[in-house]
Amino acid sequence: MPDAPAAHWVLTFVCADRPGIVHALSGAIVAAGGNITESQQFSSEDTGRFFLRLQVESPSTEQQFAAHLAPVAATFDAEWRLDRVGRPVRTLVLVSTAGHCLNDLLFRQHSGQLPIEVPLVLGNHATLEGLAGFYGVPFEHRAVTSPETKAAFEERVVAAVEEHDIELVVLARYMQILSPALCERLAGRAINIHHSFLPGFKGANPYRQAHARGVKLIGATAHFVTADLDEGPIIEQNVLRVDHTAGPAELVRIGQDEESRTLTQAVRWFAEHRVLLDGRRTIVFR
Amino acid sequence: MPDAPAAHWVLTFVCADRPGIVHALSGAIVAAGGNITESQQFSSEDTGRFFLRLQVESPSTEQQFAAHLAPVAATFDAEWRLDRVGRPVRTLVLVSTAGHCLNDLLFRQHSGQLPIEVPLVLGNHATLEGLAGFYGVPFEHRAVTSPETKAAFEERVVAAVEEHDIELVVLARYMQILSPALCERLAGRAINIHHSFLPGFKGANPYRQAHARGVKLIGATAHFVTADLDEGPIIEQNVLRVDHTAGPAELVRIGQDEESRTLTQAVRWFAEHRVLLDGRRTIVFR
Amino acid sequence: MPDAPAAHWVLTFVCADRPGIVHALSGAIVAAGGNITESQQFSSEDTGRFFLRLQVESPSTEQQFAAHLAPVAATFDAEWRLDRVGRPVRTLVLVSTAGHCLNDLLFRQHSGQLPIEVPLVLGNHATLEGLAGFYGVPFEHRAVTSPETKAAFEERVVAAVEEHDIELVVLARYMQILSPALCERLAGRAINIHHSFLPGFKGANPYRQAHARGVKLIGATAHFVTADLDEGPIIEQNVLRVDHTAGPAELVRIGQDEESRTLTQAVRWFAEHRVLLDGRRTIVFR
Amino acid sequence: MPDAPAAHWVLTFVCADRPGIVHALSGAIVAAGGNITESQQFSSEDTGRFFLRLQVESPSTEQQFAAHLAPVAATFDAEWRLDRVGRPVRTLVLVSTAGHCLNDLLFRQHSGQLPIEVPLVLGNHATLEGLAGFYGVPFEHRAVTSPETKAAFEERVVAAVEEHDIELVVLARYMQILSPALCERLAGRAINIHHSFLPGFKGANPYRQAHARGVKLIGATAHFVTADLDEGPIIEQNVLRVDHTAGPAELVRIGQDEESRTLTQAVRWFAEHRVLLDGRRTIVFR
Repeated sequence: MPDAPAAHWVLTFVCADRPGIVHALSGAIVAAGGNITESQQFSSEDTGRFFLRLQVESPSTEQQFAAHLAPVAATFDAEWRLDRVGRPVRTLVLVSTAGHCLNDLLFRQHSGQLPIEVPLVLGNHATLEGLAGFYGVPFEHRAVTSPETKAAFEERVVAAVEEHDIELVVLARYMQILSPALCERLAGRAINIHHSFLPGFKGANPYRQAHARGVKLIGATAHFVTADLDEGPIIEQNVLRVDHTAGPAELVRIGQDEESRTLTQAVRWFAEHRVLLDGRRTIVFR
Repeated sequence: MPDAPAAHWVLTFVCADRPGIVHALSGAIVAAGGNITESQQFSSEDTGRFFLRLQVESPSTEQQFAAHLAPVAATFDAEWRLDRVGRPVRTLVLVSTAGHCLNDLLFRQHSGQLPIEVPLVLGNHATLEGLAGFYGVPFEHRAVTSPETKAAFEERVVAAVEEHDIELVVLARYMQILSPALCERLAGRAINIHHSFLPGFKGANPYRQAHARGVKLIGATAHFVTADLDEGPIIEQNVLRVDHTAGPAELVRIGQDEESRTLTQAVRWFAEHRVLLDGRRTIVFR
Repeated sequence: MPDAPAAHWVLTFVCADRPGIVHALSGAIVAAGGNITESQQFSSEDTGRFFLRLQVESPSTEQQFAAHLAPVAATFDAEWRLDRVGRPVRTLVLVSTAGHCLNDLLFRQHSGQLPIEVPLVLGNHATLEGLAGFYGVPFEHRAVTSPETKAAFEERVVAAVEEHDIELVVLARYMQILSPALCERLAGRAINIHHSFLPGFKGANPYRQAHARGVKLIGATAHFVTADLDEGPIIEQNVLRVDHTAGPAELVRIGQDEESRTLTQAVRWFAEHRVLLDGRRTIVFR
Repeated sequence: MPDAPAAHWVLTFVCADRPGIVHALSGAIVAAGGNITESQQFSSEDTGRFFLRLQVESPSTEQQFAAHLAPVAATFDAEWRLDRVGRPVRTLVLVSTAGHCLNDLLFRQHSGQLPIEVPLVLGNHATLEGLAGFYGVPFEHRAVTSPETKAAFEERVVAAVEEHDIELVVLARYMQILSPALCERLAGRAINIHHSFLPGFKGANPYRQAHARGVKLIGATAHFVTADLDEGPIIEQNVLRVDHTAGPAELVRIGQDEESRTLTQAVRWFAEHRVLLDGRRTIVFR
């Protein structure tokens, strides 16, 4: 296939660390006619795992390329994934009433700056229907006012994940706690934004807590959702300086910038296959 | 006294908030021949207190100036303090083995950049004797290896505070917990540096905790010492970005910059009378 | 008018520095039944000017309050302004094709977080008509393709300023250089966002310049528009860390966050009467 | 040599980019019994060059390891370097009167946090002799007061570089401009700290320039020394927020923190073989 234009591929490869992995993999890549254009690797002393992310330019088809890689993966008993660079990741967004995170995600997606596609936004309030609509994204409102309606909302999440072959669920200031069963089901593919620099100020009203404690920095944390509330692996954090003049309400306003930029950044890294799990910690190949 | 050169004064004034405070104070300043060159004020909605810090250029002596201010302070039942701008604050420094904070404090004091004077450094190890000596600062070593030696160390602190008329005690990575009685005695005039962005990672080994939790930012917090460990009013905080590659030992090294700059900054603000207490929170007139 | 609820006022007051200003002003405020809730002042050593911004709670009407203040202003030959805290400032926004700044301004205005009202967006391209429309803001497209159409665009700006009693003109990535005459006419009330940390990388294609120079930080600068291109008084600047892997196109994407946050911040401070001019420099009472 | 403890090696490898480099190199490493523990690579679109930095654990001696690598380097016509991780780099420091950068470098070197050794500090003033002496570092004072004494100073630099087999020359606020001939001689191994965020405020008195221009951020830039003043490849930059209250003298004080941390960081990266040149730009494998 000498005349095909070279495609750009992203490969992630995780296995127990031992000598020879890079040599074996780079051999398969050479055999597939590929050239490595980006490479990041990490050996975790905590878990003994080896993590690799490569970008490769290669004229091979995905099938051809995978055929070269599969034997190496088998040798090292690796979890691996091959994807086309820039392919939009199918993303379901959950919201309540605050629109700053959804606005940032959809504006950037729409501007071609964020490699996701959003087949559906699900809200437990109808507030953000218009915003989703402006960007041509379907919006469903399902009120959550009781254990029954909460269960129904989560069933709709599960169904939507199936229906749209969802790869990533984003809680864009969705203000309900997911059930342990749903957390389990979405493990490693659901990202939440918490409006504090975790582990400080877990739980409700973090800005009120921050004001009461008199901190000089407020922050935001994007993390994977787990059943253990606000304890999931952290993907990204940012902080902003504040002083004694800011009351809880102003902290809320000030913090929104950090929340949306932090969540969008985490979503971008996930969609670019830059986020890998190492126990309770994340490897982020920035 | 027409020919005296004008001196620069700093005035702090704290009282219950009500109309007319500024007018009354500015009247006293006009009467003292003063001109306000800096002014910061804050009314706390949490406590109903009014906080003011002024810098004033005036040919009055301290006694003359205070005589003008005292009736106003009495009228408003204020806590107030008048000092000469730039007067070095008498500071006792407590250390253990890590020298980065002491080095930063003494280098800056010596360079004329930090308005403190240090009549004594007390260490529970002898490690930093040479460093103190280089800057011409007396150093005393008192080992703390038992409840008795710990009590003796604290008695020496109390004695040194008396002897040198100490206004500020700085725990520059002093690795012993002060007794509640000493905390009480030094309330509002002892500053500690904790190597995390409190309230995250209280207690021992914060960098190990930070590594285990997989945070993306590490930090340092300068706070007033209270009997409630790591819960004292926060004066200053800074953070630094880290990633998955940094193990606990490297976090320690990386964090030292933030520790020393954060502590030095808090000491500077204290020495410039910029830090006022509002319940558990600080007002910092930067 | 004993039963009227107290209103919140913001007062800015600029004059030659000399003793007694604060006392005279606070006397007028006491006479108007006011209580100072925020106060910031600065005496410029460069120009000898005194700058003050106060927030005052007072039951007076604007007219009553102004009547108390006017004699003091006359005594000190001051430029002064009294406004109601939170009154939306009438703002005209100029755009071309990039929407991130307009999106941020309108989203925040719409969310009640930015005290402006936008009666009109003028674009030399039609690209952003839909975005303006979503927020219910009138949009006019006037192509600029020749000296004549450029002059016509500027005439429309001048007419719109008159028609809507515009207080602030925001160049939200408007990619045409304003004529010296228009710069002159809008002096002190037109804000531009430049996508570099000025004075580095003036002129066109700052991100390409930044890449070529190999800087490790890129930035954005919000400044008042003057006829001297990219030399107007700076209101706000932010930077972001980048490394060798980012080409010019990625710098553009990365930088957009800083551009919109920096411009929105500058607009907020202007709208809150926090920005005062001191020669070529700005006083920003944050 | 099965029982020798594995050593840690750092390898840098720069050549024209083409497929197969990683495979060939990783093959040599496997042959040398090595395991790659860190890897960073970059392909420059600007110059077509390939840059690689590896850390490898291997029981081989340096000679054995090099013997495996040499043929690969020859095949790709690469510039390469093999060194032991953590070996102190021989560093000559030039100073004038300001001590904050020298203090930071020597404190960290002394604390085992900076992998350099400093056989000599050369000053055109004697001010810092005591500081060098405290850390046991020889200090030579050679006044520069005329073209002749300047030439003599530079001759002493050249001689010291020879004598001590110097790998890195650090201008730690050395306030003389090096001659073009010396710049040429030290190309790629002399680092200077400039007290602005270049390219803003080149030349003398950057803080005075910064104050006059009214910037809201001041910064520091560590860069390789070239004959083209303040135009050498940038290694690291940091900024700090300032406001209108800071006059030029205060900017000097505030900026010193950034200067010393920025220079120390650049020196650390150089000493860890993380800085590679790509034309006028640097690759920094952080």
